[in-house]
Amino acid sequence: MNDFKFEIKAEDKETNARCGVLNTPHGKIKTPVFMPVGTKATVKTLSPEELNDLGAQVILANTYHLYLRPGSDIVKRMGGLHKWMNWDKPILTDSGGFQVFSLAHKVKNKPLVKIKENGVEFKSHIDGSTHFFSPESAMRIQEELGADIIMAFDECSPAYAARQYTKEAMERTHNWAKLCKTEWEKLQKDRKDQQALFPIIQGGIHKDLRIESTKFMVDLDLPGIAIGGLAVGETKDEMYNILDSINPYLPIQKPRYLMGVGTPEDLLEAIAHGIDMFDCVMATRNARHGSFWTCNGRNTIKNAEFKFEDTPLMEKCKCYSCKNYTASYVRHLIMEKEMFGQRLLTIHNLHFLTDLMEKSRDHIKKGTFDSFKKRFLKRYL
Amino acid sequence: MNDFKFEIKAEDKETNARCGVLNTPHGKIKTPVFMPVGTKATVKTLSPEELNDLGAQVILANTYHLYLRPGSDIVKRMGGLHKWMNWDKPILTDSGGFQVFSLAHKVKNKPLVKIKENGVEFKSHIDGSTHFFSPESAMRIQEELGADIIMAFDECSPAYAARQYTKEAMERTHNWAKLCKTEWEKLQKDRKDQQALFPIIQGGIHKDLRIESTKFMVDLDLPGIAIGGLAVGETKDEMYNILDSINPYLPIQKPRYLMGVGTPEDLLEAIAHGIDMFDCVMATRNARHGSFWTCNGRNTIKNAEFKFEDTPLMEKCKCYSCKNYTASYVRHLIMEKEMFGQRLLTIHNLHFLTDLMEKSRDHIKKGTFDSFKKRFLKRYL
Repeated sequence: MNDFKFEIKAEDKETNARCGVLNTPHGKIKTPVFMPVGTKATVKTLSPEELNDLGAQVILANTYHLYLRPGSDIVKRMGGLHKWMNWDKPILTDSGGFQVFSLAHKVKNKPLVKIKENGVEFKSHIDGSTHFFSPESAMRIQEELGADIIMAFDECSPAYAARQYTKEAMERTHNWAKLCKTEWEKLQKDRKDQQALFPIIQGGIHKDLRIESTKFMVDLDLPGIAIGGLAVGETKDEMYNILDSINPYLPIQKPRYLMGVGTPEDLLEAIAHGIDMFDCVMATRNARHGSFWTCNGRNTIKNAEFKFEDTPLMEKCKCYSCKNYTASYVRHLIMEKEMFGQRLLTIHNLHFLTDLMEKSRDHIKKGTFDSFKKRFLKRYL
Repeated sequence: MNDFKFEIKAEDKETNARCGVLNTPHGKIKTPVFMPVGTKATVKTLSPEELNDLGAQVILANTYHLYLRPGSDIVKRMGGLHKWMNWDKPILTDSGGFQVFSLAHKVKNKPLVKIKENGVEFKSHIDGSTHFFSPESAMRIQEELGADIIMAFDECSPAYAARQYTKEAMERTHNWAKLCKTEWEKLQKDRKDQQALFPIIQGGIHKDLRIESTKFMVDLDLPGIAIGGLAVGETKDEMYNILDSINPYLPIQKPRYLMGVGTPEDLLEAIAHGIDMFDCVMATRNARHGSFWTCNGRNTIKNAEFKFEDTPLMEKCKCYSCKNYTASYVRHLIMEKEMFGQRLLTIHNLHFLTDLMEKSRDHIKKGTFDSFKKRFLKRYL
């Protein structure tokens, strides 16, 4: 997989932070990187040009949603995700596993999924129709979508599931990861643009299971490695303890992706724990509800104080929204449920994270990441 | 009012169509022109840059809505509409009259307005609070908003109101227009950027009333003149008959604005009847519901035929949406209620109208407007 060479450019001496470049068929990704989430092949409210301008290097799309609608066959027929959504930089698709389980957990505790050894039967959250995801079908669907990085099919058990259940789910995930690898190798033969497969470490909040899972996934020798099943209800300390415990077993030369994280403070902490890649809906979802980040913490534009505020959302911010509009105008748009207000806050929040990642990369290179992180958190928290 | 000089560049020989340039403190407007509607100081879903790119020369904002929220005092404090919404081209605000009456007519036939000789008492559609609009307050609010073109306060009576009622409403509108003129002249003295006041011709579907109203408004000798109370339920023939009947009384050298029109076919017909300026929410509202215009008529993206359509919404269209996306992708976004889909259709529909106006201007100059119009309508209808 020379298409996905990962070059480490600098390693921090005081923390486990590193900074690198991941090559893909659609360009290089500088890490640490935050990936905006475009669930249904669109990062809600934004155009590809806006994503590019705010510093997005790679975006994520959801296999589960695109499989149900419009169908991955249609996306393939239209030339694949990149062409269809007019985004020529890297894309990552998840495996659908997380959505299958999280949507099932959502419907009045009534399980909509049947977990079998060879996959998961589930009912669509849209029309209740029955579907089946297997490791093999997750690979085939993601091949049709055509992202640069695809994820192995996994079972994400709840943070506080019984240890025995967590262990069984992890073992299923291991078995599925092997099957994914076999199917993926087969599918790549016919492709022009190669896809990198990342397996997903599971094991809940149990250190020994996490280490076992890490060793298993590392042995598969795939182009990258992901950590799933965190930021799903456990405490922050539990999350960082897990990251500490698996760190010695992770190969230096492969990109590490912590799924579903997160907030500015979590990103910085996780970078210090050796993580290279992140995604989370919070930046975009919060924006649509009027919430935005500044160096001084999280704020909400609905606060009456912003009614007469003729300065931008954040001083010195270089995003399109802050360069061109006052908080007063953004507040008016959000109060009136105007979509342009949601766009402006989405741009700001995503830029806040891409900018934080850029600053982190610079400080890792300069050897000043730890003091940068402490300074940022002191002001932010 | 030298700031608002209107220069006629060409007059069609076969129809009453004309083509001109209206000067404003924020730049020139080439007519015939379609003005996108930005009710709450934002053309729904779009940025100012997108409006500019799709060919918008001037946009409209609504006095009624902005008076209620956030309040015209806030807009003034923030530097006026242009600065606040980051749009440096011309803006027109309506007087609030139409909204006061149309919102009142909407609430279960229970009148929320009390019409008095000196103005209208109405209840906010948002919180039921009581407000009063007078000719003077409509001028003061529009001065605070700071648009280039402002409208006289008028009563827009329903198309099929009794003749006697229509006559009384028209006479009130005449009286109010005079009061508006006096207040407007006073307010302009303290302004750097002057505002042009347009009075609004009323008179329902009655030719004699319309002619009487036209004569009255022309006598006020204001920088432009508007025709209100059309496209509110009367037939198309009735509308064009009214335009025909008042045409001889309208001065050549002043811009004529037909309020609330409309569709591509109505725009072309009205241009042939001597109209220079238009606004309508249809282009933007229809877009948000999945409806779009092409040279072959109106279509809806929800049609199953577009599922696999790998061509743009319209062949040869030069709008951003058609240059970059397939109908298949736009359909997916609209079906999933994704805002970016609403943006793409809004851009397309508005571009369709600005492009139609540009073509009309070219054909009027070349003396081929009538055949262009016939050719367009033959294919479109």
